[in-house]
Amino acid sequence: MVEVAVTESVPVISVTGGNPKGVLDLVKGHNIKTLVLVAARRQAEKAQELGADAVMVVGQEGGGHLGRSDTGTMVLTPQIVDHLDIPVVASGGIVDGRGLMAALAFGAEGIEMGTRFIATKECQAAHSHYKQALLDADEDSTVVIKRSLGTPARALKNTWTDRILQLEARELGYEGLKDYISGSANQRFIYDGLTEEGFAWAGQGAARIHDVPSVSDLMTKIITEAEDIRKKWSGQS
Amino acid sequence: MVEVAVTESVPVISVTGGNPKGVLDLVKGHNIKTLVLVAARRQAEKAQELGADAVMVVGQEGGGHLGRSDTGTMVLTPQIVDHLDIPVVASGGIVDGRGLMAALAFGAEGIEMGTRFIATKECQAAHSHYKQALLDADEDSTVVIKRSLGTPARALKNTWTDRILQLEARELGYEGLKDYISGSANQRFIYDGLTEEGFAWAGQGAARIHDVPSVSDLMTKIITEAEDIRKKWSGQS
Repeated sequence: MVEVAVTESVPVISVTGGNPKGVLDLVKGHNIKTLVLVAARRQAEKAQELGADAVMVVGQEGGGHLGRSDTGTMVLTPQIVDHLDIPVVASGGIVDGRGLMAALAFGAEGIEMGTRFIATKECQAAHSHYKQALLDADEDSTVVIKRSLGTPARALKNTWTDRILQLEARELGYEGLKDYISGSANQRFIYDGLTEEGFAWAGQGAARIHDVPSVSDLMTKIITEAEDIRKKWSGQS
Repeated sequence: MVEVAVTESVPVISVTGGNPKGVLDLVKGHNIKTLVLVAARRQAEKAQELGADAVMVVGQEGGGHLGRSDTGTMVLTPQIVDHLDIPVVASGGIVDGRGLMAALAFGAEGIEMGTRFIATKECQAAHSHYKQALLDADEDSTVVIKRSLGTPARALKNTWTDRILQLEARELGYEGLKDYISGSANQRFIYDGLTEEGFAWAGQGAARIHDVPSVSDLMTKIITEAEDIRKKWSGQS
């Protein structure tokens, strides 16, 4: 897949799972920018050493796979900014222009959003029940599963994740969990809309998502919010 | 104690444990501002209903007692700002001017810092070993204890907290834990400097504390950092 990307002159590759060395080595010497997802300072330093062009930091607020230390975006972003020379992109709990301005205050060069983009008109792969679950979410609506496997990941809390956590408490390991954490279980929720017969990733920011706009409207709103804050601080409003 | 505060015309009272109603009722009608610590949206709404003048939000990054939902400061602060009419003060993971500007971006009116002030010259009650432990901390250096009692609280990770977590995993309840989580165990670490014979509260922000300045120097530095960000955004630098 990386070779196809090189052949097709893809401008940017985002590396999000495991050791990034393989992908980074493959694209070296080609005119492709690489962005590596990291959830801890040491991972970030390693990515820089391996030649990444930028890192994307994910704090414990994020949806999907997270770091093992539960470090908040608020702490992890400035910490990594202080240790790296390459640009840092912040993620985890960011859903609006206020989050963007906070990320810039920490010294990040930009933001990444996951959950926020699922609740957009263009995200057609996501079943309407998945989007509705994000709209209904509050601060108690997500849980971290797979911690017992050393791969913690944040999902929407439902009877399915309750069951996963029960199995994890019984220390059943991967074999005891595999049917519950499988790709099929994920797809049943997110594609088929079976909200109690599978699981769906979501960040804590879901508590702050109240609409399903077009991506264009979302971007305009974020930029307007950020610009309002900037103006306020520069004494222009 | 509240009655003494009323008699002595204390200007501000901060209420940080349990239901704030008792204290808020006692100071009603007196010229005393009340600030209530909250770790969830519903607590914040309740505090406002009860007549609090402001709330102080603490995200999961904070040291000491936290909310049960592990919500990051990054999500909790703007969420509570959006639901309340009274001013919101942000806390949890904030140690510098960048955190201050992020909090203001979220719509908070100010910040509260705990761990950061322990590592100052003026904090004479804290043993030098406690301050050194904060300086040595990285992103893996804090843990949440007492989750099994429904009162999660963040402390510096050491053999003592490892033992607490082992006892919690065995579901021994308060009786099985009380000698380990007692005030004496806390004091042995923070006052006596016995860093493996007790526990000490600390927020995740400890990973970003690298000095023990005077409070005056700390405040000057925070204001300078915040002002630099403001200038950058207003195009003045």
